[in-house]
Amino acid sequence: MKKNLAEFIGTFWLVLGGCGSAVLAAGFPDVGIGLLGVALAFGLTVLTIVYSLGHISGAHLNPAVTIGLWAGGRVSGKTIVPYVISQILGGIAAAAVLYVIATGNGNEIGNFAANGYGEHSPGGYSMLAAIVSEFVMTFMFLIVILGATDENAPKGFAGVAIGLALTLIHLISIPVTNTSVNPARSISQALFVGDWALSQLWLFILIPVLGAIAAGLVYNFIKKES
Amino acid sequence: MKKNLAEFIGTFWLVLGGCGSAVLAAGFPDVGIGLLGVALAFGLTVLTIVYSLGHISGAHLNPAVTIGLWAGGRVSGKTIVPYVISQILGGIAAAAVLYVIATGNGNEIGNFAANGYGEHSPGGYSMLAAIVSEFVMTFMFLIVILGATDENAPKGFAGVAIGLALTLIHLISIPVTNTSVNPARSISQALFVGDWALSQLWLFILIPVLGAIAAGLVYNFIKKES
Amino acid sequence: MKKNLAEFIGTFWLVLGGCGSAVLAAGFPDVGIGLLGVALAFGLTVLTIVYSLGHISGAHLNPAVTIGLWAGGRVSGKTIVPYVISQILGGIAAAAVLYVIATGNGNEIGNFAANGYGEHSPGGYSMLAAIVSEFVMTFMFLIVILGATDENAPKGFAGVAIGLALTLIHLISIPVTNTSVNPARSISQALFVGDWALSQLWLFILIPVLGAIAAGLVYNFIKKES
Amino acid sequence: MKKNLAEFIGTFWLVLGGCGSAVLAAGFPDVGIGLLGVALAFGLTVLTIVYSLGHISGAHLNPAVTIGLWAGGRVSGKTIVPYVISQILGGIAAAAVLYVIATGNGNEIGNFAANGYGEHSPGGYSMLAAIVSEFVMTFMFLIVILGATDENAPKGFAGVAIGLALTLIHLISIPVTNTSVNPARSISQALFVGDWALSQLWLFILIPVLGAIAAGLVYNFIKKES
Repeated sequence: MKKNLAEFIGTFWLVLGGCGSAVLAAGFPDVGIGLLGVALAFGLTVLTIVYSLGHISGAHLNPAVTIGLWAGGRVSGKTIVPYVISQILGGIAAAAVLYVIATGNGNEIGNFAANGYGEHSPGGYSMLAAIVSEFVMTFMFLIVILGATDENAPKGFAGVAIGLALTLIHLISIPVTNTSVNPARSISQALFVGDWALSQLWLFILIPVLGAIAAGLVYNFIKKES
Repeated sequence: MKKNLAEFIGTFWLVLGGCGSAVLAAGFPDVGIGLLGVALAFGLTVLTIVYSLGHISGAHLNPAVTIGLWAGGRVSGKTIVPYVISQILGGIAAAAVLYVIATGNGNEIGNFAANGYGEHSPGGYSMLAAIVSEFVMTFMFLIVILGATDENAPKGFAGVAIGLALTLIHLISIPVTNTSVNPARSISQALFVGDWALSQLWLFILIPVLGAIAAGLVYNFIKKES
Repeated sequence: MKKNLAEFIGTFWLVLGGCGSAVLAAGFPDVGIGLLGVALAFGLTVLTIVYSLGHISGAHLNPAVTIGLWAGGRVSGKTIVPYVISQILGGIAAAAVLYVIATGNGNEIGNFAANGYGEHSPGGYSMLAAIVSEFVMTFMFLIVILGATDENAPKGFAGVAIGLALTLIHLISIPVTNTSVNPARSISQALFVGDWALSQLWLFILIPVLGAIAAGLVYNFIKKES
Repeated sequence: MKKNLAEFIGTFWLVLGGCGSAVLAAGFPDVGIGLLGVALAFGLTVLTIVYSLGHISGAHLNPAVTIGLWAGGRVSGKTIVPYVISQILGGIAAAAVLYVIATGNGNEIGNFAANGYGEHSPGGYSMLAAIVSEFVMTFMFLIVILGATDENAPKGFAGVAIGLALTLIHLISIPVTNTSVNPARSISQALFVGDWALSQLWLFILIPVLGAIAAGLVYNFIKKES
């Protein structure tokens, strides 16, 4: 139970921090934090939760991470359903809090920080580009997670590596899809935006999960090589 | 006594670094550091003091942190009054130094780096949005602090996690309230700005303290779960 | 074999992350990450791979690094050829993936993130300036690598130091040559740009390797002094 | 002898990286790194050298640091002269290399990255503001250095804390004096700019040294309190 609470709070922080910085601060006139600030914010949500709640739940904060760790043999299949539910609920709670704050100056939420492709890609990238980007980004995210938590990796540094991997992923791919690699994050925003965000949501659930599973299998293959 | 001196110096550095970067460098023409630089500066004041004076005083640097740690059972109630006084005095000393520097090019201090809501929110956010933001941000700040200093957390990394948590909090919420989460920081600026900053000061004392107490209680609840 | 696979994946990530952030996100209208974001991205590719795959292959990700480590007596000469081939192939694979994504909004790749001097230097710097810059930057990169992985250096921090050294190198020298210090990175981009990028490629292979060898010799000289 | 070589190379890197990023990249059109990038660059020069050459020389890289550590009882008085000479020569060598690169596109060096006050302050700050700023910034820099290298501080993290303290100092004070806190850095630039930079150089030698000595005394006073 305390593990699920930790996943709820951690994913709440990921969505509030990452999407919140995007919605509230990225485009602030003259001194806005831009995509660089948003990329940093997403990464720091993970870094801070790994060091504070990681010793409770492992700090997955992302259904694709939980499933990728299962594919890599790191967590049992029984973990998946309760963790994924906690993550999705935490993301939705964050979106609700963000909604209250963001509309507190009389503005509408517009597209919130929803993920999209084609005409809803920030830079107008096609569905194919979105699929390639989300697959490769989630794949490499899980490679970093699996490697940095390997028993041979330097102790203690996993939170730095994993958090900053998420920053890096956003530095590359926000223009393509607004960067998901995390179905809980995508679901939370799409529920508030509705419409196109819901009809494009399948991609941001399916592709990150496939990329994560592929990484679990590839990482184990590398480890077995000699 | 040396603990109180460390809290004085540490909070001096938090206010001089955080508010100083905002006042002196955020809006510098063409190459200013923007809100991203200010967010980084606030976080780095905490990170640098945790590693340098944390072994002396614990590096709270913030009345809400001291009270939240008390609520979480980490420090004795006797710590609160001397620490809070040291923190407030350190903040005021920093504001005085910043005043001397900032007016050294003939400019007035304007709103300094005071916190505000409604018409004094940087982005025009309402009092309700300000209350929600300050409560949740301080709550999560204390969750990170309590978790990263837990005996089960990776050793040594607390300063990185806690400092960068404060960076993250600023990346999200500067547009809403100019970000307080720290009554000592808010008091130091309001005393020099006077007027509206003093009349809105109650929010930036009360809400961070309530958010911190809530986090102390919730963190202990999670730890006791099984 | 698994070492070569790790070098392939790691260099794939270095080129996809570093060059990808430059091509996709640096100049995004209004909120682009700029050269600062690109510098951070290059560094974070190395930081994340050192902590995740460093325990498998050492995470060189760069022919100049492999050769510099050989000059410094850290790796055997037999390592060079398979590592360099893996690095070049990983870089080319990343460039191919980046090509698919980057052209997914109907744009051409233009100069991709190719390295250049003279009229192809981002800031119009001469061939001499490019040679000095690439030599000194690679020299210092290897000094940091050799020193941070020395048996007397603090344990575990090499990934932070080496990754952020690459960020620093980009903060200085992107305007001069678009920053190489890595022949695999330069080859990968030049193959897709062709033309001038191929005819200037010699500099970005030769000079980083010479700078790296010089660092290997100088570091050993310092260590032997008393 | 190897310690002096390490100080030479380290200070070379500090000046080339910090001043080089300012001269070459800060104002690059549209995507320049700005003062935030320069602040990061200065800090990363120190961070990277602490982890790579710190085990050889202690990585002072700054006459004020060497003198402050002497005032705090950390190094012997015999260290001062050879270290300071090595640091100044390293800084001058870096300025010479930077001169070759920076003039390689036909531009003049202008004010390089020289420190100044009054009409030569980037933001037009008075001599008094400059004195206060340089004194307090160097004072706090040494407090962080003395504290983070204290035997009670967390092991290994000193390089992160000290490097990022220098970043923080630049985030605050570049507009005031272009930030010195380091006589070797100031001397290196003033020699190439001549004229006003030489006549204002006294401040950037004297004040950082005084701030550093004060920190050495204050830190020891705090440690002795009970």
